[in-house]
Amino acid sequence: MRIPLDRAGGHPLYQQIEDFLRQGMLSGNLAAGMRLPAVRRLAMDLQVNRITVENAYARLEADGLIAGRQGSGTYVLATSPRGPVQVGEGLEIWPLWQQGPLARVKKESFNDQKRMEYSHPQPINFGGGIGDPHLLSFKDFGQSIQKIIRRQGATGCTYGDPRGFGPLRATIAQILASQGLQTAPDNILVTTGSQQAIMLVAQLLLRPGDVVVTENPTYSGALDIFRSMDVAPIGVEVDCDGMQVDKLEDLLRQHHPKLLYTIPNFQNPTGVCMSSQRRRQVLELASRYNVPVLEDDHVGDLRYEGCAQPALKAFDQSGMVIYVSTFSKMLMPDLRIGFLVADGPVYDSLLKRKCLSDLATSNLLQRSLDDYLSVGRYQAHLRRSCRIYRKRRDAMLRAIEEYLPKEVSLTPPKGGFYIWLRLPQGIAMDELFRRSCREGVGYAQGEQSAVDGQLPDAYLRLNFAYQPEAEIEEGIRRLARAINRDTPQFSQR
Amino acid sequence: MRIPLDRAGGHPLYQQIEDFLRQGMLSGNLAAGMRLPAVRRLAMDLQVNRITVENAYARLEADGLIAGRQGSGTYVLATSPRGPVQVGEGLEIWPLWQQGPLARVKKESFNDQKRMEYSHPQPINFGGGIGDPHLLSFKDFGQSIQKIIRRQGATGCTYGDPRGFGPLRATIAQILASQGLQTAPDNILVTTGSQQAIMLVAQLLLRPGDVVVTENPTYSGALDIFRSMDVAPIGVEVDCDGMQVDKLEDLLRQHHPKLLYTIPNFQNPTGVCMSSQRRRQVLELASRYNVPVLEDDHVGDLRYEGCAQPALKAFDQSGMVIYVSTFSKMLMPDLRIGFLVADGPVYDSLLKRKCLSDLATSNLLQRSLDDYLSVGRYQAHLRRSCRIYRKRRDAMLRAIEEYLPKEVSLTPPKGGFYIWLRLPQGIAMDELFRRSCREGVGYAQGEQSAVDGQLPDAYLRLNFAYQPEAEIEEGIRRLARAINRDTPQFSQR
Repeated sequence: MRIPLDRAGGHPLYQQIEDFLRQGMLSGNLAAGMRLPAVRRLAMDLQVNRITVENAYARLEADGLIAGRQGSGTYVLATSPRGPVQVGEGLEIWPLWQQGPLARVKKESFNDQKRMEYSHPQPINFGGGIGDPHLLSFKDFGQSIQKIIRRQGATGCTYGDPRGFGPLRATIAQILASQGLQTAPDNILVTTGSQQAIMLVAQLLLRPGDVVVTENPTYSGALDIFRSMDVAPIGVEVDCDGMQVDKLEDLLRQHHPKLLYTIPNFQNPTGVCMSSQRRRQVLELASRYNVPVLEDDHVGDLRYEGCAQPALKAFDQSGMVIYVSTFSKMLMPDLRIGFLVADGPVYDSLLKRKCLSDLATSNLLQRSLDDYLSVGRYQAHLRRSCRIYRKRRDAMLRAIEEYLPKEVSLTPPKGGFYIWLRLPQGIAMDELFRRSCREGVGYAQGEQSAVDGQLPDAYLRLNFAYQPEAEIEEGIRRLARAINRDTPQFSQR
Repeated sequence: MRIPLDRAGGHPLYQQIEDFLRQGMLSGNLAAGMRLPAVRRLAMDLQVNRITVENAYARLEADGLIAGRQGSGTYVLATSPRGPVQVGEGLEIWPLWQQGPLARVKKESFNDQKRMEYSHPQPINFGGGIGDPHLLSFKDFGQSIQKIIRRQGATGCTYGDPRGFGPLRATIAQILASQGLQTAPDNILVTTGSQQAIMLVAQLLLRPGDVVVTENPTYSGALDIFRSMDVAPIGVEVDCDGMQVDKLEDLLRQHHPKLLYTIPNFQNPTGVCMSSQRRRQVLELASRYNVPVLEDDHVGDLRYEGCAQPALKAFDQSGMVIYVSTFSKMLMPDLRIGFLVADGPVYDSLLKRKCLSDLATSNLLQRSLDDYLSVGRYQAHLRRSCRIYRKRRDAMLRAIEEYLPKEVSLTPPKGGFYIWLRLPQGIAMDELFRRSCREGVGYAQGEQSAVDGQLPDAYLRLNFAYQPEAEIEEGIRRLARAINRDTPQFSQR
């Protein structure tokens, strides 16, 4: 035990030791039943006289905080902890470097989530960004983990190849090919979720003051990354064929962006797909203006109807596109295993960044995933997910039709997770969100996806994939109550 | 299957489909036994006539690449794959944005490691940064994972609290208190290894052009982070009491650093501990000059002799110190679970950065670790690790004494993983490294830890904790052969 002692200060050493231990017991950090170090040991650790430690222990024992058991040591007794100690408790003034911008971080979204979770006995959350984790067979996946631990023991559990476990990269290449994208395992970099992949690309290619072009609205987590780097995102409006490419060239010419970030399939949050023609145009313009393209294909294969659109990366013959995807959306969010596909020198730069960021993605989880995953199993899981999510989408569309005021509007998505719902004018959105939370239904607020934090109309992003149909209906009913209470003028259909 | 088709181009569509599938089969991405989509399905996906798909399949079948099985679909047959397809194969010219600095990334350390691994049948690696993963009971840890999967199923496997799983943070607070550092679970942020923790702090507090003060030499992974951000590290020399604090004040006054990064316990790579007096001085100076302190305590508890030095954080009354540690060194590197302790507004800013970087650290692994871990178990594991690593350190010291030329010198470390070995002058270090790899022994090259890439003398960093004593002796013998072949003038003792 490395207790900090002030040997020059006024307090006697036994009292400093006593104070430290007492504080630990009252805070609950030194919990009942814990064995304290032997007197001899602690005296040696701290380079104090044994009597000093004995004095400290004696005083704590006299106060009923600890007790010596014959022959087995000294133990912490049960007390009523007063709660955690805080450094700087009562302090109004943090160090200078902790004031200013650091002190102004908003933690809204986290608080919103907590607010909902704690204020309703059976919350329904349309606000998340993941599919239903119950669709995965945990029993099978658990068996894969167990097998890896049993067979590979410690070998499976040291830092592995920083590019990602080789056989898993080969499996990913096969899955991508089976979905229409040819690449090689050596061009695949396994990342800790696709969030990390986006972060790596941003860190590598962007510097403060740079400009990045995105769809508007777009994935809030990417916007947050760009903003955190003092990079200005510029948005291109979206219609039912995706990014309005005719507006792109002017932006490229004017702003010289360092990156074009796009979600061509089932865009987050709008749910639209970019047309084939526009995909080719985007690639052409990017090449002409020398702008790297970051393609985020997080739910590209979750298609419930309509024809398939190849990834931008599938058209890429020259290394313009960095492709990012993940197993978090298809299999299990908590895997934290995503990947990127990149060709050319940029791959090694991204690999180096990956090592700097967290050395490697868990080898145990990678090996387990590779054991669990095969092209056939992936395809089967995909078919099943599409079948189930299509029904949930339809259930949400029906419930919206039935319960929400007829003034709301939307374009039914052909895949992915989201319905992008436009609300009628005149609703106080902050108030609506609070009331929805009280009713026990959560959603993502539209402005979070807006490039400049504002949208011309009021929107909600509703995730229909996460929960079963009965809950979807109940959730929309709750949302209807929250909307109608705000705006009694809106008739229910 | 989303095959990219060029409907405007010259090639007929059936041929484009055929080419895509053929390329996949020859590259091995579409592997033998894989079922191709049904004709009807693929025609719908691609919005082409069924006959188009039938034609493509017929030609592939005629070439013996696929075969239809009555009633069950069309399958890929075994071929001799020609190896992966490469985008831009044969291309000399990558897009303009991929030229310049991007193309000049060194991948040395990764290649060095590979070089050794593949060039010797039984390589011995003193170059790593981890302890021996075999000390952990994988069976017990595997049972914890199994229990979590069984009990919590999908619930345990969605994104959890971004600060880290609550009970695990409480356990960490208890372990820290048992080692001499009092904090509260709310001040602990779980990270994907301590590497991520260092990265988060650097990203939050540093901007291009800033200066950071570190020990010299220091952890190369931290130096790489600083350099990747265009931040200039300035080094303070180290002696047997750690950072030479008397040289610190001038540096602080002159360079206005934005961060002071230090490894006070069993410093990487030198193995020295900062004295108590210097710890207080560092804190005092940091406060006076308003410089946040990043304390990296990755092996602080792995002490084999001598008295315990409290963490800098244990003296911190005002929120000056951000403390970083990890379970990668103590338990299992592949866990990828580290943590930081921070007080004041900086905590929320770091939390926000954490979410941007990878959303959350695997909940499954966090819950499993929390199930496995208790203060008692941690202490027991620590005692056992110290006992074993002490013997290994002594074995390495003995082997160095016995086999290496008497001109080498070192200070025996009292804890941690590393011996910092100074070699006699006149050895060609690059050549020595290559020869050592051929002999089958790896080490970390000293200059990797040097703040400006150079050291006044030639050093190797040897990890004595990773492998058993017999291998340590054999590894040092190999090293001796590599050294003596270079410098026959150095006598063996």
